[in-house]
Amino acid sequence: MMKLYYATGTCALASYIALEEAGAEYSTVKISFATNEQRSPEYLAINPKGRVPTLVTDRGILTETPAMLAFIAQSFPKAKLAPIDDPFAFAEVQAFNSYLCSTVHINHAHRPRGSRWADDPAALDAMKKKVPETMAASFDLIESKMMKGPWVMGDSYTVCDPYLFTLAGWLEGDSVDIARFPKIKAHRHHMAERPAVSKVLAAQKG
Amino acid sequence: MMKLYYATGTCALASYIALEEAGAEYSTVKISFATNEQRSPEYLAINPKGRVPTLVTDRGILTETPAMLAFIAQSFPKAKLAPIDDPFAFAEVQAFNSYLCSTVHINHAHRPRGSRWADDPAALDAMKKKVPETMAASFDLIESKMMKGPWVMGDSYTVCDPYLFTLAGWLEGDSVDIARFPKIKAHRHHMAERPAVSKVLAAQKG
Ligand SMILES: N[C@@H](CCC(=O)N[C@@H](CS)C(=O)NCC(=O)O)C(=O)O
Ligand SMILES: N[C@@H](CCC(=O)N[C@@H](CS)C(=O)NCC(=O)O)C(=O)O
Repeated sequence: MMKLYYATGTCALASYIALEEAGAEYSTVKISFATNEQRSPEYLAINPKGRVPTLVTDRGILTETPAMLAFIAQSFPKAKLAPIDDPFAFAEVQAFNSYLCSTVHINHAHRPRGSRWADDPAALDAMKKKVPETMAASFDLIESKMMKGPWVMGDSYTVCDPYLFTLAGWLEGDSVDIARFPKIKAHRHHMAERPAVSKVLAAQKG
Repeated sequence: MMKLYYATGTCALASYIALEEAGAEYSTVKISFATNEQRSPEYLAINPKGRVPTLVTDRGILTETPAMLAFIAQSFPKAKLAPIDDPFAFAEVQAFNSYLCSTVHINHAHRPRGSRWADDPAALDAMKKKVPETMAASFDLIESKMMKGPWVMGDSYTVCDPYLFTLAGWLEGDSVDIARFPKIKAHRHHMAERPAVSKVLAAQKG
């Protein structure tokens, strides 16, 4: 059985929803960022990066959201969470997820985690100030060029969808009005209607 | 036939080497960052992100290094550039590449491209100052916890190897002495001995 380490409000939500959509048997462990549990010796022994998500499998641990999402899709082919038999279509899924991971998530992280990249408090303020602009630019690109709609890849729901849902959930805190992006706003509603999504959101609170 | 858009000194080198190792038929187009060609209307019509690499295929364009590397490995199975029939082993490859893309590449980018994340010149200086520290921390983790050796995934050469080679090539410019990382230093030598690598390095200069 797989075990997912997560923290609430983080990118780990994407993998959590994907496991649920896949019909996987899994357990979860909630990590507290309030007490910096992600940097405790116990957690670092599991994931030396000190981040969530971490997925413990029979074969070993996995990290990195795009890798975990592709793994979940490939491990539960009946759930059809990615076009795993078509390398080009699969690469489109992966390119979308890689953009979320390497650009959108990073834009957002300059608000709460600027200290990864600079020490000077004035620099951290300068980074925070630009987050609404960089997040809006990324979501403009997703809305106008990347998302096919109603789901990210068009008519088929894929692992891109819980990932987009997770990062779009950060817009409000980043002072970006989601109403600017009609397709992404509608996507949030479609996602919220899925039983797997409401189940995971309720479980996270508990 | 595939077409790769690249610029010298960039992460596009990883995909360029992978295409060569795969025995793919491909052509290349060199973009000039000196004239900001990546932001020209012509290039943005191909890749609206305004970045390299871009891979033009018969089915459409692909971006994002990890997605392109997985696509190349899956499209040329005989080259055995990834364990594509084993979802867990494939996920390990992808997790490594995702870390390079979302953490290592981003650490480095705070030196030449800090203006993505802040406008204040003093903040850009503060970002530049921390790059040697963040790059060294990432490569420490790769050296001690992630890389199996002699290749990233152990005895088998995979698409992780040209990607690591590409980003390790940035260490010197980021004021980090590669001698701190004996496995990664040896890896550079092994890579330089591969005919595909010397061919691509020579072609890039031309
Ligand atoms: N590239 C990783 C990033 C993981 C990551 O940065 N997670 C954040 C939460 S969204 C975290 O664990 N932060 C804790 C910290 O920085 O201490 C992924 O996409 O999974
Ligand atoms: N996540 C993308 C990032 C691509 C990227 O940022 N490429 C850089 C070169 S290493 C670039 O095109 N920079 C040009 C610019 O920022 O104008 C990938 O891994 O392929």
